[in-house]
Amino acid sequence: MRVLAMLDGTLADPGAPHIRVDDLGLTRGDGVFETVLVVDGQPRELGPHLARLSRSAAMLELPAPDLAAWERLVGIVIGAWTEPGEMAVKLVYTRGPEYSGGGPTGYAIGLPIGGRAVRNRTSGVTAVTLERGFDPAVVERAPWLLLGAKTLSYAVNMAAMRHAEKLGVDEVIFVGDDGTVLEGPTSTVVVASGGTLRTPPPSSGVLPGTTQGALFRAAERAGWSTKVEPLRADELATADGLFVVSSVRKVTRVHTLDGAALPDATELGTALNALYEAEYR
Amino acid sequence: MRVLAMLDGTLADPGAPHIRVDDLGLTRGDGVFETVLVVDGQPRELGPHLARLSRSAAMLELPAPDLAAWERLVGIVIGAWTEPGEMAVKLVYTRGPEYSGGGPTGYAIGLPIGGRAVRNRTSGVTAVTLERGFDPAVVERAPWLLLGAKTLSYAVNMAAMRHAEKLGVDEVIFVGDDGTVLEGPTSTVVVASGGTLRTPPPSSGVLPGTTQGALFRAAERAGWSTKVEPLRADELATADGLFVVSSVRKVTRVHTLDGAALPDATELGTALNALYEAEYR
Repeated sequence: MRVLAMLDGTLADPGAPHIRVDDLGLTRGDGVFETVLVVDGQPRELGPHLARLSRSAAMLELPAPDLAAWERLVGIVIGAWTEPGEMAVKLVYTRGPEYSGGGPTGYAIGLPIGGRAVRNRTSGVTAVTLERGFDPAVVERAPWLLLGAKTLSYAVNMAAMRHAEKLGVDEVIFVGDDGTVLEGPTSTVVVASGGTLRTPPPSSGVLPGTTQGALFRAAERAGWSTKVEPLRADELATADGLFVVSSVRKVTRVHTLDGAALPDATELGTALNALYEAEYR
Repeated sequence: MRVLAMLDGTLADPGAPHIRVDDLGLTRGDGVFETVLVVDGQPRELGPHLARLSRSAAMLELPAPDLAAWERLVGIVIGAWTEPGEMAVKLVYTRGPEYSGGGPTGYAIGLPIGGRAVRNRTSGVTAVTLERGFDPAVVERAPWLLLGAKTLSYAVNMAAMRHAEKLGVDEVIFVGDDGTVLEGPTSTVVVASGGTLRTPPPSSGVLPGTTQGALFRAAERAGWSTKVEPLRADELATADGLFVVSSVRKVTRVHTLDGAALPDATELGTALNALYEAEYR
């Protein structure tokens, strides 16, 4: 099933047209989004998701989103969802129609979680490193590049995923021109080594991960060290465990990188997922 | 006025919703576009525009567009346009709704040309060079970066234009990490020096310009040399003339770059525009 609620709180038919052809979200990819995991009716990390929506909107100089209205919207979608188990709520916020003067477009859509994503959480995935084509040093100098904003301009992210699919690989890990790890097209990269979890910093032009944040919070309480710092690409293969992390993936283990098997991190993955899940009990 | 025709050839109300909330053009910037100038009912460079639409679609692995259908669509929009003078027809082609299995979305919309763009053709413009954050050497290595495809993922292009606006500047000229000139967010860069017109090559990750192509064709017949080759950023200020070129801009002279006045290219601009216009008489 799918459930759609427009920003004014009205439920609408997700199969009907609701967007104008001149919406700048469509014609210019000029908008931002979030995907929130919902388990048994409870949205996870909603505060961090809404905070990131605000930060992304600010980077695009969109009107500040009314977070209370967005929170209500998530509740409306969840309330109309009738299937058990997990779902995702996608929030989309655009600059709105170019020729109406009517202001931004906003909606939330409830979606099922894809079967492959669920299976991958258990089986683990293969991944390939791909160049992202920028040097993290540019991030601070050039805010117009919007590095670190979760925008609707995801054509490159989608093209990278198609490229991986042609290679027969499940996931992409982007690498910067300086040889440091960035992120996946729709995930955060986390490595575990000797009791420490590490992830690349937002100053490298990556999104601060909401699920990664929850995992680190849980891990710290369980005695892990955590570091948000640059990570060299050549460290990925030698870590105790490599993970791609997102709302939908949770903590998904990478078992093969660039065609080579990684150290077996099955137990480590199970342990980290248990920590993450314990955040919501 | 605005005129909208959907890809099946039906005219529709441009102020009504026609796009689903799960259209991948909207949620992922996953689509391509073109903007065609129409003068007195005649579309300019329609063949090159449609060829570029095809190339962009191929880079995104979209289904090959039916160019005869798109050409008809442009004719339908022009036929329904009742105002004299110039207009633009924007073609938008997306991967379509994520959850329908119904295939791509396509439409053409007829729009008036903005007064500022028309005035700038005569007055000339100020411009600022901004980093685009990639090295042109990556273009061939990393096709998933879609450099040189005219995609809907234009959030960075729009952010760069907003950045210029805050600086009180009209136009942006993007520069690569290797110090070569790339393009504007929605324009092609052309310099004139000693009887030669130059523009950066597609291998640098820029769009091949349709208006630049027409200008070069016309200039070659009038005895100019033309070169499509890398152009160093430090050559912009010393050229006889610097121009930003697009369907809507035609050949617009840059009179001030990064705050410094450039050599007066008023006459040169008039001459080049006359050459360009002569292509359509």
